[in-house]
Amino acid sequence: VTGIVTLLTDYGLADYYVGALKGTILRLAPRARLVDVSHDVAPGDVVGAADLLAGAAPAFPEGTVHLAVVDPGVGSLRRMLVVEAGGHHFVAPDNGLLSPFLDEGGAWSVTRADLFLRAPGATFHGRDRFAPIAAALVRGDHPAALGERIVDPVRLVRAVPRREEAEAGVVLRGTVVRVDRFGNLVTDLPAEWLTASAGRSVAAEVGGRRAERVVSHYAELAAGEPGVLVGSLGTLELSLRGASLAEAWGVARGEAVRVEMPRR
Amino acid sequence: VTGIVTLLTDYGLADYYVGALKGTILRLAPRARLVDVSHDVAPGDVVGAADLLAGAAPAFPEGTVHLAVVDPGVGSLRRMLVVEAGGHHFVAPDNGLLSPFLDEGGAWSVTRADLFLRAPGATFHGRDRFAPIAAALVRGDHPAALGERIVDPVRLVRAVPRREEAEAGVVLRGTVVRVDRFGNLVTDLPAEWLTASAGRSVAAEVGGRRAERVVSHYAELAAGEPGVLVGSLGTLELSLRGASLAEAWGVARGEAVRVEMPRR
Amino acid sequence: VTGIVTLLTDYGLADYYVGALKGTILRLAPRARLVDVSHDVAPGDVVGAADLLAGAAPAFPEGTVHLAVVDPGVGSLRRMLVVEAGGHHFVAPDNGLLSPFLDEGGAWSVTRADLFLRAPGATFHGRDRFAPIAAALVRGDHPAALGERIVDPVRLVRAVPRREEAEAGVVLRGTVVRVDRFGNLVTDLPAEWLTASAGRSVAAEVGGRRAERVVSHYAELAAGEPGVLVGSLGTLELSLRGASLAEAWGVARGEAVRVEMPRR
Repeated sequence: VTGIVTLLTDYGLADYYVGALKGTILRLAPRARLVDVSHDVAPGDVVGAADLLAGAAPAFPEGTVHLAVVDPGVGSLRRMLVVEAGGHHFVAPDNGLLSPFLDEGGAWSVTRADLFLRAPGATFHGRDRFAPIAAALVRGDHPAALGERIVDPVRLVRAVPRREEAEAGVVLRGTVVRVDRFGNLVTDLPAEWLTASAGRSVAAEVGGRRAERVVSHYAELAAGEPGVLVGSLGTLELSLRGASLAEAWGVARGEAVRVEMPRR
Repeated sequence: VTGIVTLLTDYGLADYYVGALKGTILRLAPRARLVDVSHDVAPGDVVGAADLLAGAAPAFPEGTVHLAVVDPGVGSLRRMLVVEAGGHHFVAPDNGLLSPFLDEGGAWSVTRADLFLRAPGATFHGRDRFAPIAAALVRGDHPAALGERIVDPVRLVRAVPRREEAEAGVVLRGTVVRVDRFGNLVTDLPAEWLTASAGRSVAAEVGGRRAERVVSHYAELAAGEPGVLVGSLGTLELSLRGASLAEAWGVARGEAVRVEMPRR
Repeated sequence: VTGIVTLLTDYGLADYYVGALKGTILRLAPRARLVDVSHDVAPGDVVGAADLLAGAAPAFPEGTVHLAVVDPGVGSLRRMLVVEAGGHHFVAPDNGLLSPFLDEGGAWSVTRADLFLRAPGATFHGRDRFAPIAAALVRGDHPAALGERIVDPVRLVRAVPRREEAEAGVVLRGTVVRVDRFGNLVTDLPAEWLTASAGRSVAAEVGGRRAERVVSHYAELAAGEPGVLVGSLGTLELSLRGASLAEAWGVARGEAVRVEMPRR
């Protein structure tokens, strides 16, 4: 245990929620070291939070506790999960948020009601339940001491990218899974599907627009030129030099991507 | 003393102010553990900051120093306060920001000018005065060593919610004191004023619109249905399932709320 | 070495980038103490980041490592810098971001490729290269152990403010270098150029609008009155009481400022 607790929520930064979450962890686990990952997940966006956590968590040292609260079902009977995977502990509502870590590790449904705070209402389980669970983990409790092992945690159903061999070449079909602050379109297409034969040019289409140049970094593009490159999570990414491609093309998360590579 | 210093300001995150505030505390109290509560208070919004701090501070362990700087009067003769309440120390300008803690504790006006930084201008007392005061407290100084006891700190005047017995039933009159990121309308009406006889239905009116169903958590509502529930600070809250009620009804902080409960 | 690593990026708070940056530093230097300075620099705004860091960094204790990643040239052959100045270490791409610290200290171009992470793509050197460099410094490595000394780091070319003696008086010509969250216009005109003879009135012009009153703090102005004062970095600042002057006058960063002071 490193004492590190990362925090990921959709609470925003203008309200008291983040402060109360942090205070509760520090009150229950005074040696915890809090690290903000993001509080700017769109309200209720479980899918976005899952992707964000999948990108950030592996960077942390083993023994880190990751607390993620995007919880539109707060107060209902949805379970509260602890997942152990890759030497990390994850705490979140059982709504799919921890999907990226389920294949690798064990999952527990927390039943230790004695841990929970007695506080008004049933609208802020981040403070009243999840923070105490994270505090218990950072104090060294094993997940098995907090609840019972389960085998059916909720999993997000995600579109699966495809690779099709056609006569004229290879066609990749995927989805824009993330639009970052720079307006880059991050897809779920594995970068290794780019065939060597594709060389420096392909036809990548999103929303009726097309990028044709494959580059290794943004600055290789000319100003205003769209291009395709290998992104930081190992998938294909579309980018526009010096501006937001998402804005220029009017593309949002969820849009289909099609990449065609000539046979040679 | 836990070494924890929480930070609450209206500086925003795009400027150098937050960094300079943090650096100054760490320079003067190298073992301080900084915790961001919020830097997204609306510029000059002392009332919003007071409410935010009232929600967040009690979650922290005793011995925490809370530094809160929303200071439209910076540079003027307004006093600089230290308040001790519930085992916590609070530092802020004397403009009402610490109102929620005044009933419970003692207040001092800081006079130890030798603590203050010599720096250009009189526009950034967060860095030049409040940070050194917080650093002194986290190093273990008692408030009495920093200034003189006062009995007349500035208090915010708040509307007081009312409970009226009428023939047809009970009427509660209050105010929307907070609109959160999810668009929930948080009122100042104590949840215990909901009479048992009200059962699962009331008539809650804000801005000419009405919610009638009392639920215990958000997910109990149907999509698009407004409802009333007990919020996380023990007051009544109005909410819309899956969307912002504030936006749907065009309601902002300060709006009057009226809740009517039939006698049975 | 204090263990403190400050973080300044243009990554925003809604993406996984900040989390991955933090996790990497903590994985490689488990005792590092991370301090967010800002992740809200406008995308690619190297000049804004340089100014922000120049304001914030001096507040921190000696031995602090400042990591600043605003890196439109990520993946290209641009160098990666370590600068030592005033007892602080700075890490950033060689694009001018560290200009404010170059006069005072030594600069090294990092060549220790063995430090870098093997990770997909060439788009996230914050995680893959700069974080490991910062981690090495916080673990105690000397910059000379990380690369080779250089004498030609990239410097931003900035407009130089001028002071002109005319018959009628003194004229100062400068630039709005920063607009803060309150809408104050921060200039690059040294406050000491305000002559004593100017007393409490000058003629300060920006964008065809004019402020004439010199005050020592914001609250000295009447509501809606524009004024001139000494800002927190020792330069002249224009402000409007209780509202954003930038908005009221339609002024943005880069606008010319002219201040005229009568001879007496």
